[in-house]
Amino acid sequence: MKRIKVVDVLQCTDFGTVVNVKGWVRTHRSSKAVDFIALNDGSTIKNVQVVVNPADFDEALLKQLTTGACISVIGRLVESQGLGQLSEIQCQSIELYGTCGSDYPMQKKGQSFEYMRQYAHLRLRTNTFGAVMRIRHNMAIAIHKYFHDHGFFYFHTPIITASDCEGAGEMFQVTTKNLYDLKKSEDGKIIYTDDFFGKMTSLTVSGQLEGELGATSLGQIYTFGPTFRAENSNTPRHLAEFWMIEPEVAFVDLPELMDLEEDFIKYCVRWALDNCKDDLEFLNKMIDKTLIERLQGIVKESFVRLPYTEGIEILEGAVAQGRKFEFPVTWGMDLASEHERFLVEEHFKRPIIMTDYPKDIKAFYMKINDDGKTVQGTDVLFPQIGEIIGGSVREESYDKLMSEIERRDIPMKDMWWYLDTRKYGTCPHGGFGLGFERLILFVTGMQNIRDVIPFPRTPKTAEF
Amino acid sequence: MKRIKVVDVLQCTDFGTVVNVKGWVRTHRSSKAVDFIALNDGSTIKNVQVVVNPADFDEALLKQLTTGACISVIGRLVESQGLGQLSEIQCQSIELYGTCGSDYPMQKKGQSFEYMRQYAHLRLRTNTFGAVMRIRHNMAIAIHKYFHDHGFFYFHTPIITASDCEGAGEMFQVTTKNLYDLKKSEDGKIIYTDDFFGKMTSLTVSGQLEGELGATSLGQIYTFGPTFRAENSNTPRHLAEFWMIEPEVAFVDLPELMDLEEDFIKYCVRWALDNCKDDLEFLNKMIDKTLIERLQGIVKESFVRLPYTEGIEILEGAVAQGRKFEFPVTWGMDLASEHERFLVEEHFKRPIIMTDYPKDIKAFYMKINDDGKTVQGTDVLFPQIGEIIGGSVREESYDKLMSEIERRDIPMKDMWWYLDTRKYGTCPHGGFGLGFERLILFVTGMQNIRDVIPFPRTPKTAEF
Repeated sequence: MKRIKVVDVLQCTDFGTVVNVKGWVRTHRSSKAVDFIALNDGSTIKNVQVVVNPADFDEALLKQLTTGACISVIGRLVESQGLGQLSEIQCQSIELYGTCGSDYPMQKKGQSFEYMRQYAHLRLRTNTFGAVMRIRHNMAIAIHKYFHDHGFFYFHTPIITASDCEGAGEMFQVTTKNLYDLKKSEDGKIIYTDDFFGKMTSLTVSGQLEGELGATSLGQIYTFGPTFRAENSNTPRHLAEFWMIEPEVAFVDLPELMDLEEDFIKYCVRWALDNCKDDLEFLNKMIDKTLIERLQGIVKESFVRLPYTEGIEILEGAVAQGRKFEFPVTWGMDLASEHERFLVEEHFKRPIIMTDYPKDIKAFYMKINDDGKTVQGTDVLFPQIGEIIGGSVREESYDKLMSEIERRDIPMKDMWWYLDTRKYGTCPHGGFGLGFERLILFVTGMQNIRDVIPFPRTPKTAEF
Repeated sequence: MKRIKVVDVLQCTDFGTVVNVKGWVRTHRSSKAVDFIALNDGSTIKNVQVVVNPADFDEALLKQLTTGACISVIGRLVESQGLGQLSEIQCQSIELYGTCGSDYPMQKKGQSFEYMRQYAHLRLRTNTFGAVMRIRHNMAIAIHKYFHDHGFFYFHTPIITASDCEGAGEMFQVTTKNLYDLKKSEDGKIIYTDDFFGKMTSLTVSGQLEGELGATSLGQIYTFGPTFRAENSNTPRHLAEFWMIEPEVAFVDLPELMDLEEDFIKYCVRWALDNCKDDLEFLNKMIDKTLIERLQGIVKESFVRLPYTEGIEILEGAVAQGRKFEFPVTWGMDLASEHERFLVEEHFKRPIIMTDYPKDIKAFYMKINDDGKTVQGTDVLFPQIGEIIGGSVREESYDKLMSEIERRDIPMKDMWWYLDTRKYGTCPHGGFGLGFERLILFVTGMQNIRDVIPFPRTPKTAEF
């Protein structure tokens, strides 16, 4: 007999047929007359109810069907008498695959997220983490589908890199050297010619520069891969290993880039609303009562397009009217989280795409405006989480890019290949980056980034 | 005016309308009466022909439109007079975005692949690498679509790991330690408590063990991420950094797992045939004249299912009839490439799924058969490339798994979480691994694995 998944059996109305379901016991309630087993196989947040007549089964077997045990059930599909479910299974036979002792760490409901992080391999079996992981999957699928449907090519940029140009953060070193026998040159420098790659290498902090190589060849590409920051930040917003999406587009200008950002992020949120209904309803009930409303808001609203300078004027106006901020507002500063949230949540009450930032608070590769002071950066600011997308049009002029590199004193000796894109048939282009886990935080309503990735890597933690 | 991509303009039959295309000059042929510019924007292997009346344009501008230059063209779409194309563009205006000097490394046609590897950032602009990268994209999309449609969840297993249990190969160390000031304990051991993760960490060689944690919670998962081997192998088949796909399924048995392997790989090949026609035709013409025929063969044939022991008998029979092999054939050996190719290409002339290998040539986690000698491994062997998929049913019994771990003396102290899956509600399950670049080699007909990934990482090479 072919097994049916719980997600399918719950939609089946062929009452009377005999079905086989397999999964893990979520709860087992016993009485003299009848036992109810809630069975889950991970395919959905919902359980199928297995109704057992205890007189038909060995008492010792039934006693082993505790929370976490794994079983295969054959039984007749019948219309459910209870509320909240269409069908249930009248049990005919049970095969026990695996028992689960009372030391099972996910035994009790309502454990703290901190407790559950210690058992990241077993928390996946709970309602909350099942929901988060299914939504995470759906967001990845939405991203691939969006870009594929729009003619972008998925482009694998390297993880191990010998360049540290962007300086986006501290990097992890990658080596096969024997640390007990480090050869040094006469002036005391470690010699890397015998390291695996013949030079010092690290884990990538961004695929953007290589992504530009793809876009200036294939037209439109996107990356979706792991990215690393060796920052000692123990916050609910930082991971040492996270996944990033970085589309890069040839022949795009600033308004087109903003259109792409808005259309893309709305597509993802709409996908969640359309495809993750059960999981979102659960999270809306248990984690954040305003979650679904907030997601619907994103899809409905058109995003405000706000030059940085106008944003500063609005903030200065608010200060003049008595609004207090921890950090003073001045043109040229990087907006603090409190400023972003004021603009998004209080002033406009809508997502904002902010543009035309002062050049000194942005990266060297952004296209400089004619004013000589601002660059064509374009970040998307969301309620609650702040910057969800950071993007820009790139400087395509070799001379302008070189003078910015020199002004900032950026070591470009290893970056000849990047400069070649401006040397041989340069083209206008731009792109953006989205931190995948930031998106998952927003779409699930979870509060800690460690709880939206299966096995988080943070300072002093690399378990599993 | 909104730009139209080359892939779209070539299918457009609105003759007479004025269109805007942007891209890079592939060739520019001049005569007194007319200039022909072949323009490509990466969206397709085909170029759009731009017909220029030289009398209408500045001679100095036309001289700059050399191979590799980037331009924007506005012109009237007309029915083509030439063969092999539906439409062409009668040029009205040209904007030059970027010139391309005669030192452009991709200037000449017919350069060797070895030469092009030095310019991996520019080889992407050639026909061959454009085709390979678009097919690579399509294979990734096919993989995500297949698993999503079959109810698998995309599961991100960690890249940085503190466990080295499988011992699948040498590993890269990941560290933030200051190598100039390595603290050691009294017995001379390097102290890792002050390293970023508080212990020694490496780059993953496989996501399978963590994938099993996902499958025994969510039912069916797949990984698709970068994987690392620090082997000093300078061959056309090895990369230090490559991408792997590792599905893992709860409640699967050996025949079902073989069905999944066969159905999955056929789906990918069929996707290429259906969605990459132009690129495959180009590669079939330029790289491998039997490519399309071979791909069609894979889709049509049903795979042979062959227990290892029967495979050995066939090989022994061939030897008895005078067939010479470099390596002698004996039960218990790992098949060499020559043996696999004999079985696939000469004996059966079809792909083979080989099963039930001697346990000592396979990994510790494979389910041991009742004979006590063989395990439920299940590898897919393809013509030309040999093993394309390696899989197995996993041992789900805690006791049997532990005795195998002890017999092999595998250090399991860091693997408590893996053993927990067998301790709490264990279930039958299995899965397989597919090296993404091996698949791309097969589907493109390319011969060197360095040529099917944008920026290959191999011993002494980490450019770009």
